[in-house]
Amino acid sequence: MNRTQLNIEPKITLLGAGPGDPDLLTLKGVKALQTADVVLYDALINEGLLTYAPENAIKVYVGKRSGEHAFEQGAINKLMVDYALNYGHVVRLKGGDPFVFGRGYEELDHANSYNIPVTVIPGISSSIGVPGLQQIPVTHRGLSESFWVITGTTSGGEISEDIYQAASSKATVVILMGLKKLAQIVEIFKEAGKKELPAAVVQNGSSADEKLVVGKVATIVSIVKKEKIEAPALLIFGEVVSLHPSFKTLINQYASIV
Amino acid sequence: MNRTQLNIEPKITLLGAGPGDPDLLTLKGVKALQTADVVLYDALINEGLLTYAPENAIKVYVGKRSGEHAFEQGAINKLMVDYALNYGHVVRLKGGDPFVFGRGYEELDHANSYNIPVTVIPGISSSIGVPGLQQIPVTHRGLSESFWVITGTTSGGEISEDIYQAASSKATVVILMGLKKLAQIVEIFKEAGKKELPAAVVQNGSSADEKLVVGKVATIVSIVKKEKIEAPALLIFGEVVSLHPSFKTLINQYASIV
Repeated sequence: MNRTQLNIEPKITLLGAGPGDPDLLTLKGVKALQTADVVLYDALINEGLLTYAPENAIKVYVGKRSGEHAFEQGAINKLMVDYALNYGHVVRLKGGDPFVFGRGYEELDHANSYNIPVTVIPGISSSIGVPGLQQIPVTHRGLSESFWVITGTTSGGEISEDIYQAASSKATVVILMGLKKLAQIVEIFKEAGKKELPAAVVQNGSSADEKLVVGKVATIVSIVKKEKIEAPALLIFGEVVSLHPSFKTLINQYASIV
Repeated sequence: MNRTQLNIEPKITLLGAGPGDPDLLTLKGVKALQTADVVLYDALINEGLLTYAPENAIKVYVGKRSGEHAFEQGAINKLMVDYALNYGHVVRLKGGDPFVFGRGYEELDHANSYNIPVTVIPGISSSIGVPGLQQIPVTHRGLSESFWVITGTTSGGEISEDIYQAASSKATVVILMGLKKLAQIVEIFKEAGKKELPAAVVQNGSSADEKLVVGKVATIVSIVKKEKIEAPALLIFGEVVSLHPSFKTLINQYASIV
């Protein structure tokens, strides 16, 4: 039998799962999973989400290991299309929002080249949701009229030029995938005259093992080291960090170590 | 009877409802509504969401009319605390994400001053979700390593200074509540040498009556006028707009009118 006889209608849903807490998935996301024939899911996805998919749906882990991005992305694109053509509805379950450094458009573009219809379902981006869950607002009257979200790891492996400009702006600056480059990033803020700017780092945002440190540009590197913060982590630079409930306490607590 | 005798435990949940489509609410949001004694909801909230709250919960519309922000915000803060003290769990249901120009932190701060515990539940921000639903990625390798979200309407009623800097950056620039100032904003981009930069305006993003126009900095004002785009609308400036499925077609279609 060929595909037409089997009544397979290939389609793909790019679904944002949110920052980690499975309850931060949207209702629309649940409905998409319920009609999945195949789920392709990333690293950092809470596997509890897979239970929304039918029991007999195929579930495939396609988490990428650091440093193998280029190769793996092509493999994911190919898998996604192959599964859609052979099984029908593929839900591509991605951390955060599919279009915030998620390479989602590359997947959409690949599907388009096979004329497979794609639906996009946004997810809570950790760039907004993780600070928010910590009661750090990315915008607040009098402190910030904007926020700027930047990747810490560009495709070339270098610091994004956008970070230089962001450091001298008045925006709240949120950097994803930037922990390994924290020392370099902090230097950029210092050169922009921002050593007193409040800064926070959140590890595993929205998960049970979430961990937060707050400080200032001048002190955050030492604090991160002392508290053994590890990736995945999100960096926040901006006056809004001073609104965090424990900012004053923590600033005093760490005053001695830096 | 006083409050203690009634076993009232005041608490407040600041809940982001997402951009409009009720299915873009999170599961965590549904659970919060299910335990609400009172729901205070904004303009632009889909009233279908209120059905998640118990039938006997008090539902109060606190939508703000343009130009009366200062007065109304104080009234909302007061109502929220009064209801929490007298009825228990208040869900403050806000459009998008509570901390993206939602004045959510002012509400949290007011609740804190009464020692009422506050939980924040992030929502899909229209700044990311609305472009995404239109298959416009806010980031894409080779086109954009960052996105910058700015309010078009500052508390002082003026153009945010951040827009001047954003216009000369390489970030995807997303402006909320900026439609009335579109002509001024476009001038800023032109002065930054960006008249050929792709631009899009989305009215009522994620709703049944969603409407999109795309063009370039040089043409977008005429197109918005011709197509009678109205608020609420979101503005997107950036090379990523050229990825929209109909960009080429629409650019040709409008070539004659500008």
